[in-house]
Amino acid sequence: MTTGQPHVVIIGGGFAGLWAVRGLASAKLRITLVDRGNHHLFQPLLYQVATAGLSAPDIAAPLRHILRAQRNVEVRMATVTGIDADTKRITLDDGSALDFDTLLLASGATHAYFGNDHWAEHAPGLKTLDDALDLRRKLLLAFERAEAATDPAEREAWLHFAIVGGGPTGVELAGTLAEIARHTLKDEFRNIDPAQARVRLVEAGPRVLAAFPEDLSAKAKRQLEKLGVDVALGTPVKEINADGYQLGDAFVPAKTVVWAAGVAASPLGALLGAPLDRAGRVQVQPDLSVPGHPDIFVAGDLASLTQANGKPVPGVAPAAKQMGGLVARNIRARLSGGKTSAFAYKDYGNLATIGRMAAVVDLGKIRFSGVLAWWFWLVMHVFFLIGFRNRLVVLLNWWWAYWSYQRAARIILGRGERR
Amino acid sequence: MTTGQPHVVIIGGGFAGLWAVRGLASAKLRITLVDRGNHHLFQPLLYQVATAGLSAPDIAAPLRHILRAQRNVEVRMATVTGIDADTKRITLDDGSALDFDTLLLASGATHAYFGNDHWAEHAPGLKTLDDALDLRRKLLLAFERAEAATDPAEREAWLHFAIVGGGPTGVELAGTLAEIARHTLKDEFRNIDPAQARVRLVEAGPRVLAAFPEDLSAKAKRQLEKLGVDVALGTPVKEINADGYQLGDAFVPAKTVVWAAGVAASPLGALLGAPLDRAGRVQVQPDLSVPGHPDIFVAGDLASLTQANGKPVPGVAPAAKQMGGLVARNIRARLSGGKTSAFAYKDYGNLATIGRMAAVVDLGKIRFSGVLAWWFWLVMHVFFLIGFRNRLVVLLNWWWAYWSYQRAARIILGRGERR
Repeated sequence: MTTGQPHVVIIGGGFAGLWAVRGLASAKLRITLVDRGNHHLFQPLLYQVATAGLSAPDIAAPLRHILRAQRNVEVRMATVTGIDADTKRITLDDGSALDFDTLLLASGATHAYFGNDHWAEHAPGLKTLDDALDLRRKLLLAFERAEAATDPAEREAWLHFAIVGGGPTGVELAGTLAEIARHTLKDEFRNIDPAQARVRLVEAGPRVLAAFPEDLSAKAKRQLEKLGVDVALGTPVKEINADGYQLGDAFVPAKTVVWAAGVAASPLGALLGAPLDRAGRVQVQPDLSVPGHPDIFVAGDLASLTQANGKPVPGVAPAAKQMGGLVARNIRARLSGGKTSAFAYKDYGNLATIGRMAAVVDLGKIRFSGVLAWWFWLVMHVFFLIGFRNRLVVLLNWWWAYWSYQRAARIILGRGERR
Repeated sequence: MTTGQPHVVIIGGGFAGLWAVRGLASAKLRITLVDRGNHHLFQPLLYQVATAGLSAPDIAAPLRHILRAQRNVEVRMATVTGIDADTKRITLDDGSALDFDTLLLASGATHAYFGNDHWAEHAPGLKTLDDALDLRRKLLLAFERAEAATDPAEREAWLHFAIVGGGPTGVELAGTLAEIARHTLKDEFRNIDPAQARVRLVEAGPRVLAAFPEDLSAKAKRQLEKLGVDVALGTPVKEINADGYQLGDAFVPAKTVVWAAGVAASPLGALLGAPLDRAGRVQVQPDLSVPGHPDIFVAGDLASLTQANGKPVPGVAPAAKQMGGLVARNIRARLSGGKTSAFAYKDYGNLATIGRMAAVVDLGKIRFSGVLAWWFWLVMHVFFLIGFRNRLVVLLNWWWAYWSYQRAARIILGRGERR
C-alpha cells in the first residue's frame, strides 16, 4: 500500500460498505474498512439463525476473506468511538485514530424501543448474529421451561410467544415459530403439546407488511393464520415486562416477547454534525454526501434521502448495495476531477417470506403469493448469498428442513442464568 | 408413562448416558434423562468447532429429538444440585426433586488445573460447545489484535499460541492451528504474515499421545513438526498469566494459552459418598454399581475401574458407550430377577488426528500413520456421528475445507470486552 495515495475510510461492512469497497477495487487509493465484527452478515436470513434453521456461519463470511484479493483494502476489526468531520479523523476503541481524505459512514441501524428502553431486556430484537443466538436460546428454552412447569398458568405463559411488529422480520419470525411449534417439536415432549403454543403477531398499524400493496398484506395475513399465527392488528403494545405485555386494556401473560417493531439509525450518524431525520438518519445530499462535507458520504440504512419522485429510499438490502456502488463511483469521479452523480433507486420489487410454502412477491406490475412466491423467494435469497460454500450448505439445510420438518441448529448455546 | 413402573434416573446425555437410555428402549420402566444442556455432543469433533472448521450444531443433536420415539423416556434440561443415595432422591436447580429406584450417574469430566485454578481465566479448556465457541473467538481475535498492534513485542505475543498438554485434544488443536496460520489466513492480513505465528505444543511428559505405542508417538511428533508445530517435551508449565507462561526457567510472552492438559471428574461423583480415585472418579464395582448401593451405577469418564487384566478402562468414547450399554443390561437383569455382569472393555484400537493428512492409528497388531491413517480417522468419525444430516454437512464442510484450505465457521461470536 502506498502511503501517498488518498485514504478512504469506510465504516461498516454491511451491504452498503462492502459494495462500496468492491466498487473501488481498481482505484488508486488506499481503503480501510472498519467493522465491529469480523464478518459480513447476510441479514435477510438472520431470522433463520434465530429460529434454529441455519448456523451462524452459514449466513456470514469473514470480511478479510471476502476482500483478501483486493490489495488496496485493509480490514480493521474495531469499534468507532469518535468522528471529527472537520479534522477528518476517526478514533477507535483500541485508542488509535485514522485520518481520512474521504469517509463513507455505513454503520446501519439498530433496534428502537420508542423511548421505552427498559423493554429491551424483556423483548430482545434481531440485528446481529449474537442477537440471533440469544433469541434462539430464548425460544428453545421457553419450551423446556414449559415442559418442566407444574403450574398450568406458568406453563401457558411459557407457551405464549408474542412478536411485536408486523414488518418482514416479524412476519418471518411468527410464521417460522408457528411451524416449529406445530411440526418440528412434535412428539418430543412428554408433559406439553408444543402445538398448543400460541404465536401472536402484534402490529399497531392496520395491516402487516405495510410496505406492500394492500392485497398482498391481506394475503400475508391469511397465510400467517393458516400457519397457526394469531394476528392482532390495530392495537399498540403499551408495556412489556418479565411477566408479559399490555395490549390495549388487557395484560397478557407471556414469557417470550420478541421486538421487531422499530429500527433507529446507528448513533454514529449524530457525530457528523449533519441534519438528522426523526429516526436519527443522516439527511444526505442527492449524491449521498453530507451537507457541507463533500468528502463525507453516508449510505445504507443510516442515510435518509427522498428521491426526485418524492418517494423515500427504503431501508432494504438492494438500496444499500446500490448506494454503496454509487458512493464508489462518486469517489472515483472526484479522484479524476469529475462530478458526482445523484442517487436513483432502482426498485426491482419487494418480497417477503412468511413460512413454509408461504410468501408474497411484489414486482410492480406482477404480484403473487403462496407456493410460487416462496420458491421465488428461496431462489433469490440463495442466489444472493455470498460465497459458494454458504449457498450449498444453506440449500442442503433447507432441503433437509423441508422434507423432515426438522431444524438443524436446535442447540442451546450460551451460559444462561440457570445453566 | 405408567407411574407404577420402576423409575430410572440417568444424569448426563453424553455417550454413557445416551447409550444406557437406548439400551433400555423396550424395558418396562420409566426413565428420566437429566442434562444441563439440551443436546448430545459428539465430543471427538469439538476441536473442529473451536478451530472454526465446523459449526456448533454440526456436532450436536437435541436429546429430545434423538429420543422422541422412545416413549418410556422423559428428557429434562436441568442442573443437578444434590444426590441423596440413601433416600434415593436427586434435587434440581429449578427447585424440584426426582425420586429414583435406580440411578445412573454419567456426568463425565471437566478441566483440571492441578491446584492452579487461577490459570483457568488465562488458559481456557475445551469440554463443551460454549468452551469451543469461546476458544474460537479467542484464537481468531488474536490474529486481529496482532494485525492492529503497533509494538513489535506485543504483536509477537499475539502471534504466540501455546497449547498445554500433548494428549489427543492438544495434538489436534496444535496441528489445526498451524494449518490455519499457514494456509487459511494467507493473504488476508496487511500488517502481519499469519504464517509467522508460532504454535507450540507443551507437554510435561517425555512424549505426545502417551496412550499410544512409542513409535506412533514419535511419528505424531514428526507429523506435527512438519505441519509447523513447535513441540516442547519434558518441561512442565509452572505459571500462566495474562502475559504468557513460565516454561522451566523461561517466561514466554503469549496472549493465547489453551489448556488441554488435565481432566477431573464431575463434582457430582463426590455426592454419592463412595470411594473416589485421585482424579475424583468414583471407584465402581466390576458391574459398574457403587459399593454399598447396588441400585446406583456410574459410567463413562466419571467411573474408575481396573479390569481383571490389571489395566484401567480408558476415558474414551467407545468405553463410555460400552459402559452405558452394560448398565442398561444390568438394570434389565435386575428387573427380571437375574444377576448383573462385570464390565469388560472391548478395545478396538486407538486413533488420533494431527492435522491435514496426518493421523496415527493403533489397532493392536496393525499400526499406521500419515495419509492413510487420516482417511481412516475421517471415515470412522463421520460414520459415528449421530444423525444423517450432520454427517452430510460435516462431509461437505470437510470436502470444502480440504480443497480450499478454508474454514467455514470463521465467525467471531459473543460480546467480548472490546466489542
